[in-house]
Amino acid sequence: MIEIDGDAVIETLRTLASFGRDGNGVCRTALSNADMAARHWFAGEMSNAGLDVRMDAVGNVYGKAPVAKKTVLIGSHSDSVPTGGWLDGTLGLAYGLEIARSWSKVHPNSNVGIDLINFSDEEGTFLSCLGSSWFCGKLTSLPDAFVSAKRGTDLPVESDIKLDPLRHRAFFEAHIEQGPRMEVSGLSVGVVSGIFGMRRYVVRFQGRADHAGTTPIALRRDAARILFHFGHILPDRFRFFGSSDSVWNLGRAEFFPGAVNVVAEDAELLLEFRDLNPLALDRLSAALLELVTEMNGEDGVLISCDEVSRLAPIALDADLQNLITNSAISHGVSPMRLPSGAIHDSMILAQSVPTAMMFVPSINGRSHAPEEDTKIEDIKLGAKVLAHAVYSCVHSI
Amino acid sequence: MIEIDGDAVIETLRTLASFGRDGNGVCRTALSNADMAARHWFAGEMSNAGLDVRMDAVGNVYGKAPVAKKTVLIGSHSDSVPTGGWLDGTLGLAYGLEIARSWSKVHPNSNVGIDLINFSDEEGTFLSCLGSSWFCGKLTSLPDAFVSAKRGTDLPVESDIKLDPLRHRAFFEAHIEQGPRMEVSGLSVGVVSGIFGMRRYVVRFQGRADHAGTTPIALRRDAARILFHFGHILPDRFRFFGSSDSVWNLGRAEFFPGAVNVVAEDAELLLEFRDLNPLALDRLSAALLELVTEMNGEDGVLISCDEVSRLAPIALDADLQNLITNSAISHGVSPMRLPSGAIHDSMILAQSVPTAMMFVPSINGRSHAPEEDTKIEDIKLGAKVLAHAVYSCVHSI
Repeated sequence: MIEIDGDAVIETLRTLASFGRDGNGVCRTALSNADMAARHWFAGEMSNAGLDVRMDAVGNVYGKAPVAKKTVLIGSHSDSVPTGGWLDGTLGLAYGLEIARSWSKVHPNSNVGIDLINFSDEEGTFLSCLGSSWFCGKLTSLPDAFVSAKRGTDLPVESDIKLDPLRHRAFFEAHIEQGPRMEVSGLSVGVVSGIFGMRRYVVRFQGRADHAGTTPIALRRDAARILFHFGHILPDRFRFFGSSDSVWNLGRAEFFPGAVNVVAEDAELLLEFRDLNPLALDRLSAALLELVTEMNGEDGVLISCDEVSRLAPIALDADLQNLITNSAISHGVSPMRLPSGAIHDSMILAQSVPTAMMFVPSINGRSHAPEEDTKIEDIKLGAKVLAHAVYSCVHSI
Repeated sequence: MIEIDGDAVIETLRTLASFGRDGNGVCRTALSNADMAARHWFAGEMSNAGLDVRMDAVGNVYGKAPVAKKTVLIGSHSDSVPTGGWLDGTLGLAYGLEIARSWSKVHPNSNVGIDLINFSDEEGTFLSCLGSSWFCGKLTSLPDAFVSAKRGTDLPVESDIKLDPLRHRAFFEAHIEQGPRMEVSGLSVGVVSGIFGMRRYVVRFQGRADHAGTTPIALRRDAARILFHFGHILPDRFRFFGSSDSVWNLGRAEFFPGAVNVVAEDAELLLEFRDLNPLALDRLSAALLELVTEMNGEDGVLISCDEVSRLAPIALDADLQNLITNSAISHGVSPMRLPSGAIHDSMILAQSVPTAMMFVPSINGRSHAPEEDTKIEDIKLGAKVLAHAVYSCVHSI
């Protein structure tokens, strides 16, 4: 059995956390100086691990096993949100680095091996999963703001690093859970069943502006009143029609003119819901539209609803899930099977290559914040469990 | 009986509407070029009506009956909100001008008479009821922004025009209703019983930011969810505890961070309620605070509430109300007794001098908007009813 050095993983994570450090967290948005510096440092570590390293035109850093012809690809990202934590993205890279290093030390001349990739802009400073989408050939052009920001960096003008289905036989990504489910369950290894699909809607309420002192309540068409009513009822409908996995959020509402002394003429509610099951998403959509129809015209307020974005759910590879499950059991721990409620590069990769994700718990479920953290023993255990699963996979390709 | 020329009233209103005209409405915010031009033109009309006219340091234009020692003061304002209509404020001035002109023509040498005043900045471009507050000695200093804007005008540096209780024995203000109650009742003359008191509160909801995809619904502290619940329930409590006159408005809510994919950490609701009865206002305050206490802690969300402003209700003079009522009846119309839900200069005057307000209906209740309008026959009828009431009052002082 190949030895995995948990302390080396922690050391890698701590060094990455020094780039763009902000208190206990990091600010390492894509293409920022801190992001580029972290990428360059990590590229050197990939080289030291025996990989042929190249950076592409969008900032992806790819480390290729020099001898192998068929590989398991491991990847994640080192960019962060503006108020990021030290583990989001970097955990998967630190695991990948240690796993690739250990493998190549023992099997330097094997025709199967491990490649590693650090994707650019997973967090969507310019576009969510920009790097992985580019790598998988899903982008025909780049956002203008990205092209403009790129001029301030040393990124190469052209790029030819792409996913190669003949070489890359599987993709593994380890990540922190970013939620509280594993901690609540007391389990340290998460086998991700799939990545939630998501639908976003804007619901518009059209009433009439009236003087809030001179217009009797009964004669108003108060868009705010109906929005509050709608926002109060909708979650009950979602609870009834969704699955036990379903989550939703009514995180933003705006009122126009938004004055304390003017009855709201218009109001707008932005909401989303997510689930792994496409039928559950369809039921949630139907419940939403039914409530719109049901309440449209209440107190003279017109309600309309538009879908503004949609992501299909992604099921992850069952065989690769089993490899992680078996690895966990062989390490004496019960894995937790759970969906990912957040978007990851794996969502893009899974459309082109068998893909698996492994989670480690997030303390208090915190993420995208300086207090983002995971117990050191959970980080070290996760590295061993993932390594064992990846090695099994490499042997089978 | 002194003759009132309804056509002259309409002519005055139409000329005033030409200053700062914007489509069918006007933009004549305090101290703007349009506001100053309208004040100067109207000052000339006041002179033509036989009054001694002076402008004070804040823009109030006062017309003094030259011979009279005791007077009834009539007043309103010619400034508007940015998207104002043609009648708000100007109606009371056009009535006052015609009433003062008619009176002085018939009684040029009487020791009782009619003064007229055009107040500055009733609409609060700088401070609500700035001009009338200054006139009544209620302001010790002026807002900085007003002092700064004044430099661009020809207003005199000093001012000594103040309310004189020995001279000004009563104050009358006519105004459009700015609401739908008279139109709904089919009545053309409104006798205003008083001006609503008002209380404004901010209600704060403190939850926890969570990733909307990774955090199960049951483990959230969702500030938006609780705000929707609160905003849905509160009006029912207000309906139960308020008077039949009570009005309220939940016209503005904000959510932080206000992102569709982040559970709202904080939310803030700004609300007000108004009533003529101080006890009703107390009951509404108590109902609000009780709901805050009741819901505080729901789903782990903390709720707090602060009063941010308060205006006491103002009762208008009962004897003067009777004069308007009797005048309406003598013109063959039933008056409607109603409170004013909006603030007016009369609110300030009533604290120092017996004060009355008369309303004419607003078509569709619209005001502070270009579609603000009143039927021509209602405008003309109102002028006659107010004139008759004012003359009765002058005879009695």
